[in-house]
Amino acid sequence: SHSINLAVIPGDGIGQEVVAQGLKILAAVLPQDVKLETEEYDFGAKRYHATGETLTDADLDSLKKHDAILLGAIGDPSVPSGVLERGFLLKLRFAFDHHVNLRPSKLLPGVATPLAGQPEIDFVVVREGTEGPYTGNGGTIRKGTEHEVATEVSVNTAFGVERVVRDAFARAQSRPRKKLTLVHKNNVLTFAGHLWTNIFNKVAAEFPEVTTDYLHVDAATIFLVTDPARFDVIVTDNLFGDIITDLAAAVSGGIGVAASGNINPSGEFPSMFEPVHGSAPDIAGQGKADPTATVLSVALLLRHLGYEAEAARVEEAVAADLTERGDSVRTTDEIGDALAARVAS
Amino acid sequence: SHSINLAVIPGDGIGQEVVAQGLKILAAVLPQDVKLETEEYDFGAKRYHATGETLTDADLDSLKKHDAILLGAIGDPSVPSGVLERGFLLKLRFAFDHHVNLRPSKLLPGVATPLAGQPEIDFVVVREGTEGPYTGNGGTIRKGTEHEVATEVSVNTAFGVERVVRDAFARAQSRPRKKLTLVHKNNVLTFAGHLWTNIFNKVAAEFPEVTTDYLHVDAATIFLVTDPARFDVIVTDNLFGDIITDLAAAVSGGIGVAASGNINPSGEFPSMFEPVHGSAPDIAGQGKADPTATVLSVALLLRHLGYEAEAARVEEAVAADLTERGDSVRTTDEIGDALAARVAS
Ligand SMILES: CC(C)[C@H](C(=O)O)[C@@H](O)C(=O)O
Ligand SMILES: CC(C)[C@H](C(=O)O)[C@@H](O)C(=O)O
Repeated sequence: SHSINLAVIPGDGIGQEVVAQGLKILAAVLPQDVKLETEEYDFGAKRYHATGETLTDADLDSLKKHDAILLGAIGDPSVPSGVLERGFLLKLRFAFDHHVNLRPSKLLPGVATPLAGQPEIDFVVVREGTEGPYTGNGGTIRKGTEHEVATEVSVNTAFGVERVVRDAFARAQSRPRKKLTLVHKNNVLTFAGHLWTNIFNKVAAEFPEVTTDYLHVDAATIFLVTDPARFDVIVTDNLFGDIITDLAAAVSGGIGVAASGNINPSGEFPSMFEPVHGSAPDIAGQGKADPTATVLSVALLLRHLGYEAEAARVEEAVAADLTERGDSVRTTDEIGDALAARVAS
Repeated sequence: SHSINLAVIPGDGIGQEVVAQGLKILAAVLPQDVKLETEEYDFGAKRYHATGETLTDADLDSLKKHDAILLGAIGDPSVPSGVLERGFLLKLRFAFDHHVNLRPSKLLPGVATPLAGQPEIDFVVVREGTEGPYTGNGGTIRKGTEHEVATEVSVNTAFGVERVVRDAFARAQSRPRKKLTLVHKNNVLTFAGHLWTNIFNKVAAEFPEVTTDYLHVDAATIFLVTDPARFDVIVTDNLFGDIITDLAAAVSGGIGVAASGNINPSGEFPSMFEPVHGSAPDIAGQGKADPTATVLSVALLLRHLGYEAEAARVEEAVAADLTERGDSVRTTDEIGDALAARVAS
């Protein structure tokens, strides 16, 4: 018999509410003989205010022992911008080498989109998670004076780029359309751009069945709204990936249904699964949050741990629920219950 | 009597075709007593292949003498990515200190948009033009090896940020809604983010009538497709501005109608006006290009040179043409003729 030892980080705002539903669905979908153990961690604004800590070495040691991590959302207006993002979210992604940030986008029939004509959308973005402008490299001199200079350094390594590009090619290879688009800005960011482009072309030679193309990030945003059907798999840098996956979420059902996995493919560290949305303090505690993104993140978590059939069942339940929900207004809990009932049956 | 001494850079691909229409409209709209002198420059792929040059010091000396510059498009697949972008376009923006990159977005009634429900769109993006990740700072070590490291450095100065933020506040102040949104990623790019945010807040205190808000760049892309009406004036960094203005163009009538001005507000160097679109080699030479973006760039040029009434006439002509064009298929020349007839009458 199997077991899953899960770290649960509800976090701030609606994080608490959506994670509760994610766990409900997880419990409902797992076979009886799989033992689910969960340990809850109190990271986020409350702990920061109480202790000044965001994520300590001891925390990392403890998290490391789990098979995977489910996260709700971290962030609160009471904490200065950047403190929890850099001090917790990014620190964890870097510490656990979550270099494959997986963000699927699929527009289901009947689901609202701001785009006219209900286009076909079914692609996945593979966002690099441990390099680029996210490394925290850079600094400030003469802070607060009229002579202040602030720099941000995007760091890109052959090692880091090649492993994520390989992952993306393998994913493209396994999908029916077998198409991979590199998104960058290699005509302006020529140093990083050459590195990404050269490695992309080199690896492409090993995947002759995969059709490739290249788009500048600005052009990619255009196609995401005018012709999203052209995308199958996209591989891109950390910052470009951050930007285009929010746009991708917006056009394919909204941020309420966008899931993500921060994956360490080697398994050296546990991977982390989280909705793309934030803590939404404006609606927190009111039972208004849509738990769908978290539930779809649970599906990614199940797939990552080898529970493919269960992952598919969760995704089918969500698809059915989304297609049938129409204009109905349901609470977070009601949506969770409906999904739990679907996966159990 | 007045005169305009204009540098004309048709450039590559459809640049030639659209600039011809821009000049047609300029000639048609200017009062008889304004003498229009134009000097054409051969920058772009052809000259690069013939001479290896993109933009020399002598070129800059010559361009400097003009009142303004009208540019079509620069870029061709026969030239390695980055050579003309960095060697011509960006070199010129930097050499002439074009720090205010103005990009208006207005969706006219009846104009096609990928968004459902024909939302109201009427905002302008003030993109910083001489700093951020566009400076060319950075480099590569161990190029081509498995140990390659490539960096890109975003450089942000109090001087550079404050002048563009002030420009944006002044623009917001002069518009009916008086609203300014700062777009950045200050929770991750904390060095540059603090600089932008602090200066934005400092200058805001001098413009009490202007309502302000802040959005992370990823969230901004969401609102650009779900609620573009919320924007009035946006101020942002060079790279974020590049990305969101392509998306803004896509939702507000397409890249065929998006104009831009690379402005040196002090007048120390001539400002440059250009369509946001590129050279589109796939449709070049076929009379298929829409010259509207260039014509609207001519309107920005006229306004910059003090010809407000003429600028408005051009914009009204374009608005009327766009609203009435329906599904008609016209050549580049036909659209130009129609617009010239409208502004002349
Ligand atoms: C909160 C922030 C650090 C994060 C990011 O920029 O990666 C978020 O926007 C995301 O996309 O997961
Ligand atoms: C061609 C390129 C250098 C340019 C930019 O990135 O600024 C273009 O995309 C633009 O927006 O004018």
